[in-house]
Formats: sequence, C-alpha cells, structure tokens
Amino acid sequence: MRPIILACAAALVLMSSSAGAQSWQPPADNQRCPSKWGKDDQRGAANLMNPETVLRAARLIRTGELIELGHVLSGEMPLSAGRRFEVETKRTTMNPQSNRRGSNEELVIAEIGQVGTQFDGFAHQTIGNSLYNCFKVDEVSTRNGFSKLGIQNVGALMTRGVMVDIAALKGVEMLADTYEITVQDLQQALAKQNVTLQPGDAVIIHTGFGKLWEKDNARYSKGNPGIGVAAGEWLARQSPMLVGADTPPVEVNPNPDAQISLPIHQMMLAVNGIHLLENLKLDELAAKRVYEFAFIIEPLKIQGATGSTVAPVAIR
Amino acid sequence: MRPIILACAAALVLMSSSAGAQSWQPPADNQRCPSKWGKDDQRGAANLMNPETVLRAARLIRTGELIELGHVLSGEMPLSAGRRFEVETKRTTMNPQSNRRGSNEELVIAEIGQVGTQFDGFAHQTIGNSLYNCFKVDEVSTRNGFSKLGIQNVGALMTRGVMVDIAALKGVEMLADTYEITVQDLQQALAKQNVTLQPGDAVIIHTGFGKLWEKDNARYSKGNPGIGVAAGEWLARQSPMLVGADTPPVEVNPNPDAQISLPIHQMMLAVNGIHLLENLKLDELAAKRVYEFAFIIEPLKIQGATGSTVAPVAIR
Amino acid sequence: MRPIILACAAALVLMSSSAGAQSWQPPADNQRCPSKWGKDDQRGAANLMNPETVLRAARLIRTGELIELGHVLSGEMPLSAGRRFEVETKRTTMNPQSNRRGSNEELVIAEIGQVGTQFDGFAHQTIGNSLYNCFKVDEVSTRNGFSKLGIQNVGALMTRGVMVDIAALKGVEMLADTYEITVQDLQQALAKQNVTLQPGDAVIIHTGFGKLWEKDNARYSKGNPGIGVAAGEWLARQSPMLVGADTPPVEVNPNPDAQISLPIHQMMLAVNGIHLLENLKLDELAAKRVYEFAFIIEPLKIQGATGSTVAPVAIR
Amino acid sequence: MRPIILACAAALVLMSSSAGAQSWQPPADNQRCPSKWGKDDQRGAANLMNPETVLRAARLIRTGELIELGHVLSGEMPLSAGRRFEVETKRTTMNPQSNRRGSNEELVIAEIGQVGTQFDGFAHQTIGNSLYNCFKVDEVSTRNGFSKLGIQNVGALMTRGVMVDIAALKGVEMLADTYEITVQDLQQALAKQNVTLQPGDAVIIHTGFGKLWEKDNARYSKGNPGIGVAAGEWLARQSPMLVGADTPPVEVNPNPDAQISLPIHQMMLAVNGIHLLENLKLDELAAKRVYEFAFIIEPLKIQGATGSTVAPVAIR
Repeated sequence: MRPIILACAAALVLMSSSAGAQSWQPPADNQRCPSKWGKDDQRGAANLMNPETVLRAARLIRTGELIELGHVLSGEMPLSAGRRFEVETKRTTMNPQSNRRGSNEELVIAEIGQVGTQFDGFAHQTIGNSLYNCFKVDEVSTRNGFSKLGIQNVGALMTRGVMVDIAALKGVEMLADTYEITVQDLQQALAKQNVTLQPGDAVIIHTGFGKLWEKDNARYSKGNPGIGVAAGEWLARQSPMLVGADTPPVEVNPNPDAQISLPIHQMMLAVNGIHLLENLKLDELAAKRVYEFAFIIEPLKIQGATGSTVAPVAIR
Repeated sequence: MRPIILACAAALVLMSSSAGAQSWQPPADNQRCPSKWGKDDQRGAANLMNPETVLRAARLIRTGELIELGHVLSGEMPLSAGRRFEVETKRTTMNPQSNRRGSNEELVIAEIGQVGTQFDGFAHQTIGNSLYNCFKVDEVSTRNGFSKLGIQNVGALMTRGVMVDIAALKGVEMLADTYEITVQDLQQALAKQNVTLQPGDAVIIHTGFGKLWEKDNARYSKGNPGIGVAAGEWLARQSPMLVGADTPPVEVNPNPDAQISLPIHQMMLAVNGIHLLENLKLDELAAKRVYEFAFIIEPLKIQGATGSTVAPVAIR
Repeated sequence: MRPIILACAAALVLMSSSAGAQSWQPPADNQRCPSKWGKDDQRGAANLMNPETVLRAARLIRTGELIELGHVLSGEMPLSAGRRFEVETKRTTMNPQSNRRGSNEELVIAEIGQVGTQFDGFAHQTIGNSLYNCFKVDEVSTRNGFSKLGIQNVGALMTRGVMVDIAALKGVEMLADTYEITVQDLQQALAKQNVTLQPGDAVIIHTGFGKLWEKDNARYSKGNPGIGVAAGEWLARQSPMLVGADTPPVEVNPNPDAQISLPIHQMMLAVNGIHLLENLKLDELAAKRVYEFAFIIEPLKIQGATGSTVAPVAIR
Repeated sequence: MRPIILACAAALVLMSSSAGAQSWQPPADNQRCPSKWGKDDQRGAANLMNPETVLRAARLIRTGELIELGHVLSGEMPLSAGRRFEVETKRTTMNPQSNRRGSNEELVIAEIGQVGTQFDGFAHQTIGNSLYNCFKVDEVSTRNGFSKLGIQNVGALMTRGVMVDIAALKGVEMLADTYEITVQDLQQALAKQNVTLQPGDAVIIHTGFGKLWEKDNARYSKGNPGIGVAAGEWLARQSPMLVGADTPPVEVNPNPDAQISLPIHQMMLAVNGIHLLENLKLDELAAKRVYEFAFIIEPLKIQGATGSTVAPVAIR
C-alpha cells in the first residue's frame, strides 16, 4: 500500500502548480446565470449603491481632507499593448468679434475606457462568448458600443472605502513582482488595521507597486503582485462594490497557474458582477495610513463602453 | 439747451443695443493680471477648495440621495461644430489559455475635454493671445497640450452646490431661446428659494433649455438663454468656484451685443479664473426642487487639456 | 393540360421579381474554392497584371494626355454610414535653429481604405464567414488588419482601360437612380464605341451619376444605377482585372431583388477575385469620349487593409 | 604681411564647419517671391508636368517590367516623432438579407501625408511664417487643412525617372550614416551610369540606407546620409520635378552645420517649389541597375494636406 500512497501523494503535489496557489476554471453558464441580481440585471454589485451606502460613507468625512487616487493621464503613462493615449492640441481659432476671443480645444484619441486609472465595466471581459449575466457578445456588440452592460449603466458610486495595506503588513515598500496575495494576508492586514469589511465596500489593496508608474513602465506593465484565486474568492464572498489596486490588473500577473489568464477578471466582472479599479495612485493614502474613508467615483457615461478612465477620491 | 439734452438722451438710448443688455470689453492685461491668487497661479477659484469647503458640502448630505447631473455620452448628443464623439468597439481578442477569457475595449476619438457635460479649464479661452493670469498662448501651447493651465491642475471639487431656478421663477418649463438672465432674476430666484450664495459655491443655473438635449439638437446648439454681462459680473463678485447651466455655453448666446462673442467665457475663465460647467442635466434636480446640496465633480486629469467631460453629482 | 401550363407560366412570372432582373445566391464554398488562381492565392484578377498588360496599356499612350479619375478627398464628400474623413491640421512647430524652419503636418482619421474614390480589396466582403478563396474571417482577422488578402498584396496595376458609356448609349446625362444596366446595354455600348473587351482590362462604366458628387450627397448615397446580376455575370466572364463606376457601389443599389444585398460585391470580390473601383470621377473621360486608354492605379500598401482610397488616371 | 595672410587663411578654415560642407540661410522673401511660376502659383515644379513629359516617360517603357518603389505601410515602420500609423479593424457587420453578405473595413489614424513612402507638398515647410511663393501660414492655415498649397493641387505625375546610385559609386552597400553627398558625387555617378539629367525629371538618389527599414528603425530615423546644401543647389538648378531618396528626409541629417535644420527642405519646397519624395524602397531598382525609367506617382488628393503617402513605381 505504501508505494501507492506515496504515488498518490506525489501526484497531488505535482497537480498543484505552486505552493499556496489555486487553479480555477470559470463556472458553466447555468451555474453563474442568471445573476443573483436578476436575469436582466446589468449593474451587478453597483446595485449595492443606495442612500444608506452614501450616508455610511458621508459619516466617515470628519476633517474634510480629500486625497486623490487617480493618476494624471499623459502620453508618458504605462499603457497595455495595443492602446494609446494621444492629445492633439488644435490651432487656436480667433473669433472675429471685437472682444478678441480665442478658443482652444484638443482631439483625444485613446481607449479612454481602459487607460490610466481605470474602472472596468461588465462588457470588458468574457467567458467564451458570454459576458456577465450571460449576455452573449454576438448579440450585444455593435461597431459603436455594447447594447447591454455599457459603462453608462453604472453611475456615480459613493461608498465606504477600505484600504488593505499588504505592503505594510509585509513591512516592505513594494511587494515582489510575482507575489500572490493570500486570504491570510488580507485577514491579517485588516486585523492589523482594526478594520472589518462590510458589503458594498470599495476594497482598495495597496501593494506599493504603483511606485513604478512612470518610473519604470516596462516593469510596471510586465507583471505584478496581487490577489490570486483564493483571495479573490474570499473577497467576492464579502460582497464588495468593487476591488481595486495600484497595479494594472489588480490580480497577480501572470497567474501562478500558467494555464489560466487573469482569472480574477472573469471571477469579478463576468461571474460576480463586481467592478475592478486598476492603476490606482495609493502612495498618499498609504503614507497617511487612511484605512477607512468615503470613496467617491464618477465613471464617464460613455454609452456602450467597456469601462472608463476615472479620477476617484478618498475623503476623511 | 433742451434740444441738446434731448439729443444726448436719444444718443444714450441708441447706444444701448437692447433694453437691459450691457456690452463689455475684456480688461487690459495689466488690469486683470496678476491674478488675485498670485502671479504663477494656475488654479483660480479652485483655490477656494479646501477641507472647510468639503465639510460644508458634507453637512448637506442628509438622506443620501444622489442625483446625476451629467448626460450620457453618445454619438447622438449635440456637439459644437468641428467636434465629434466616436466610439469604435474593437474585435474581441480571445486569450489562448484554458479559461477562455475574451477581452473587449473600444477606441474613442473625441474632443473629450469639450463634449457632453463638460467642465471648462483655463487653457480653453483667450483674450487676444493671452490666457488666465496672462499666460501667453504661444509660450504655453504645444502640439500635445498646454504646459500651463492644463485641466490636470484642478483636481476633484467638493463644495456646496446651489441651483438657481430661473425657469421656475418665470413660471415656464423653458426660458425663451434668446432670453438674457438678469441680476434681478438671480436675486429674485435666490430669495424665492430662500437661499444665499456663499463664496466657493458651485452655482448651477436652471433654464429648462436642457429639455432639448437629443430632442432637438439643432435648436439646442443654435442659441440659448443664459446670463449676460451684468449677471455675469454680479455672479463673479459672489466668488463662486464655478458657474454651470443646462445649456452649451452657460451664457446667453448669441450675446445681445452682436459685436461681442461669448463674453462670459472670457470674464469667467480668463479674467476671474472661475470655471464654467456646460450641458448639465438638471431636470431631476429642478423637478425635486433641490436648491442646496453637496456638489462633487471629478474632472479627468488629462495633462495639458483645455477641459474635461464630467459626470458630476448632487447629493442631499 | 392547359390549366397546368397556365399555372406553370404564372408561377414562372411570379418567380422573377421584376422584368429583366435576376436574383442570385452566392455559390457554396466548394463550388467557388479553391480559386482558379490556386488554393493559397490572395491576388485574384490582379494575377492578370504582367509586362504584357503594361505594354498593351503603354501602346495606348499617344498624345500624353492625362485625365484624373479620382475625386478630391475632403470632409464635404459623400461618405457611407459609419465612416468619416477628418483632417486635423496640427500647430506649426518652429525648429530652434537659425534657418527658421517651421514644420506642418496633419492627423487624418478616416476609413482610408473605403472613402472617396476607392479600390476594394478581397478582405472587404464575405459570404457568411468566408472571404475570397475561402479564407475564413475568424482565422485571418486581427484587431489591426487581415493576415491574408490585405490590400498590400495588390501592388500598382497598369492595364488597358475601357470606358463603357451607358449614359451616352441611353442619350442621357445621368441614368435613372434605380436603373439596372443589362448585358445588352454593355454590349450595345461597346459596339457603338467600337471597342471590344479583353481579359485583364479595367472596365469603367459611366452612368453619369457622379454628377451628384458634392452636389447632392444624400441622393448620391441613397441609391444608384448600375450593373445587376446578369450584367455582373457577363462581365465576370470577360475576365477583367477590375470593374469600376462613378457610383458608390458600382452595382445597382438597391438590388431589384429586395432579398439580396449588393450581390455584385460578393460576386466580384469573394467569388471571382475581381476588384471593384468605386466613386470614380468620369465627367472628363466621358466628355472627351475616351473609350480606350492606359489605366494606372496605385493602391496604398496598407498592411492588412480591406481597400485603399486611390487617385487613378487614364492616359492616352 | 605673411602673419596677416596666415591669420586670414586660418580664419577662413575655421569658418567652414567641415571640409566640403556649406552653410546656408534661406533667402529673403522678396528674393524668392514671387515664384518664377507666377505670383499665385501653387504647383511649383509640377508645372513641368505636361503631355511631353508623359510621352518622354512612356517611351522608356520597353519590356513592361514594373518595379515598386514604395514600402508597405504598417505599425512596424519607422515613424518620425509625434506621428503614428494605426489600423483598427472594425467588427464585421453582417447584412440581414439572404445572401449573407458580411462587410469589413478599418479605421486608420495616421499623419497619412507624412508616413511611409511619402511625397512632401508645399504646405509642409516654412521659412519663418511663410511658405512656398510667400503664402503666409497664418493666412492659409485652418483647423482642417491649408487653403493654399494643399496636396490636392499636385495631381498624378508621370515623368522620366533617373536613379543616381551613390552607394554603387562608392562601392558600398550603404553610405555612412553621416555622409554628405556632394555635387561631384552626383556628377560622377551620372557619368558612370551614362545618364544626363533633364528638366522635369524625378531624380531618385540611392544611398542604400533603406536597407535599415524595419531592420533597425532607430538607426534609420536617427540620422542618415544624403545631399547637402551644395548638391541641393546644383540639383535645383537642373530643374527636376522632384528629388527623392531611400531615407527619411532625402538630405543629410543632421546637416554638418549644426546651426541649421534640414535646409534642403526649405530650399526645395519653400524656395524652389520642388517636391521631396522620402522613404523610397530602392533595393530592387538598384540591384537591377535601372538608371532610367518611366516614373509614375499618384499622390492622394487630400484637400489642404501637407503631403501624401504614396506607392510610386518605376516602369521600363
């Protein structure tokens, strides 16, 4: 018996691709649809937004200090492959009337839903040919936007924000590029910060990796620390309104399981209807140790878009 | 003597182009510069934004009700001549890994600083070759943005919002297309609403003209009611953080004095450093008679841009 | 018997949707593929281009007169729905050196393969999910071009050009908007012009409809006269290198059979690998009665594109 | 006296920045304007295009062999700073009719007048605020093109082409990156090739530097061999229709006189009204030793543009 037991044990060890990591496959359509929010629902966890959520956040405003969480948008910022951010300043037009009024504007060409500090909507990611709440890509996509799940459905979100500082937990400025944040990490950080998550929260994870923004864009974009499958599943069970981080994809990239590509994107956006908020600027929030705050975000209402660049704030 | 007196009186009557209207010429550079905020100042009335402003606004949040003040951005919206708003949905890219993750995004081509509900910055308008605080266009303009006065300098603004309902004052759904709002109109509306302006307010004027948005774009864009020079000067003296309306230019257009073009743009942006907020969606705010509220706006931080499309909110 | 005969006759009459018109269904893949040019062929009738073709054309150059066949590209031109042509002139950059060299350029945003006088390639039209020579759209399409059948495969074409003047045949300036050009029309015009088609020709059809270009864009774009299925099939059998006209789609639009959409596009591009050349400017060629000429076209080599705007010429 | 003479000689030596190089300053407006072609002329040396020019070229077509002189346009090609070439393939739209016709097109965003193998027009370069024939930039520039000197004025050019192979003269594959081609080089190469220049020629200079295209874009774009001021002045006196090369600016870059920036651009385009043709693909022409040929170019007729990407050919 012993050789068989040893063989089975060895097989089990071989099956897990790395210590602590967990693989994942998206659930079948009939397992995740219809959404708990209803078969026609397009808003997912934004449905948690209501006057109570707003009040809960407003009560956290004590000194009136506002901290910006968004990066400046410029041609110098890191961009995912295939994306661009171009600002073409037009010639000044001088109006002929006597008050000599000259007018300036600029043409912007960009994947404006997916650049800079960005808020992902539910048209952004698919499982096969299917989106959140099993809307089919072929049925809802057009040349000029998605007829369902467009970012204009979200609206402004004001809720309690919680920063989970994993870098501080580990006593480092920046987590290692490949570090997968675990459930234990999240729980320990929250305990250390004396904060408990509540449904509807905007959960903001600080990895420190944002330091590389416009300092080493190649490294920033190549791979990053972040939550993995286990932490993602645990977070999803806490019913947040959104999950964000100071990295491009929020989740660890690449995933330790080389067979799967950015599973948390599918888990949050397509399966659970929880928004992702990427490329946050968290240096000030972390330096000031602001763990609990009013979080306010105003995604642009671009009809049919997959997301929106945003300039969210934390207020305390 | 009497004929002379009569002649002078007649001349004076002839000189004023229309009853109640007032002409205007921009002040000389040395009269308006340096700005009261300092010779290097780029932020104008946004300098009024501070923790007290935030607290004053937060105290107005009583029920947690959030009212959206921004329009959806789509190709159907009214656009100023020469501007466009294009959303090109890219083909889905399917990642090769086993979790069948498909990714969607779109290319947006637009004068994103000057479309939809839009927030004007100080690079937008000139007096001759000179901007707010006398920055010279030739010195601060580049092919890819303005090196001074770019919209990224503004940051989020949270302040007390006051809606001044002139349509309700006049007992109409919509002011007439050419109606110039007077100082008396503003004062009477505020009195009727039992509200007083305070420095740092976001002053939001309801004309009712916003009803034409995507109903009659040609008429909406052709000309509109709004404040004229006198009301503009009075408002500027109240030291608001910004002035907004449910019309494209906020001010009456065309100006009753045919010799001048959109003088309030120069008065607010270039002379006083007060922001303009155009194309607001005010139907809900007006219907619910919300005269005082927490106003929150998050302009995109587009480096060197002349403005930003926005999705501001009123919260009470 | 007679009732049966009458019934059959009635059925036959009912089956043809209009006098002279002919319906069409695209052939099955195994009937049209592989192309007669070979199973990997991407160039279709451009394979007819060779030194003999060039010499045959060069021999037609007798006086050296060059006639332009392409329209000016501007924002005023008729454009198909969903397309645009934008030219944004950038600010002049002045180089700092002593020779005061200023540099100008413009950003162009357009479906440059499909605007103005345009040359259609084989990635442009599908039968179901399949292109010319049965390349599958899903297999050859990417976000930034087609990996097969891109317009860069065509190269310059110099061949004998033949103008078939149907407007002159009918003694009119412009054919009626809905007129379907028949086989007989083509044959009679060629006979009247004393010209015979040869394989490899650029066959240019004059309808006179090009008069509406920038005069009545709405009418020009709404529907137009042109070849129908029968004439298309006859032309295809003459083995031309391309077929062009002074209308947007070359073929009659809409097709008299309301059940089918632009069948000649599929017939020429997808089935036969014959290029289409749209929106030609033929007024001068027709006025000068130039029926036979050297035809030269230089499609841009845009990698992976579906076509190219062009400025072709006739030389005699 | 001798010390003085020596001193003068030394001063003269010091004044010339490098052996054989020659500095240059643009002539005053009243020295170069009006153009010899007339005070309202917009076409410069293209005025040399006429039926004789066409016939002279046609007579050089002996075998019908066509050689492409233009590069493929793709995102991989070298681009000048601030320019881009983007091809966004749109989603296929499937028409609802029974013939299952799917339609593809792409959005192209580029400085299409100034990318790839490109033909410079006269709106492209200024001397101070002044263009060819002293048109003033301020007077003829708009947000959407130049009202004078736009590339649509050129039309197709068919003329005798002469390749001047300097690389072959020097017995190298590629001239050195900083090599300035001299008058003697041009004369010796022509003599060696047994070819004489004639007015109206398209003069094509082979440096071999085109080998670096898409092999080492950084080096290709950084600096290149080419004609300097002396060779430029000699060439201009030969009255060519255009001057081209297999480098980005045609002229040596940087100019040996560090005080001046790309003087040949001003000399040809602004002073003499002679077009420049950049980024030619000359490997085949040079390998086949084709020194004299029919040259045909069809610049796009983009209204008001500064130039056009092109796909010119040599035919013999």
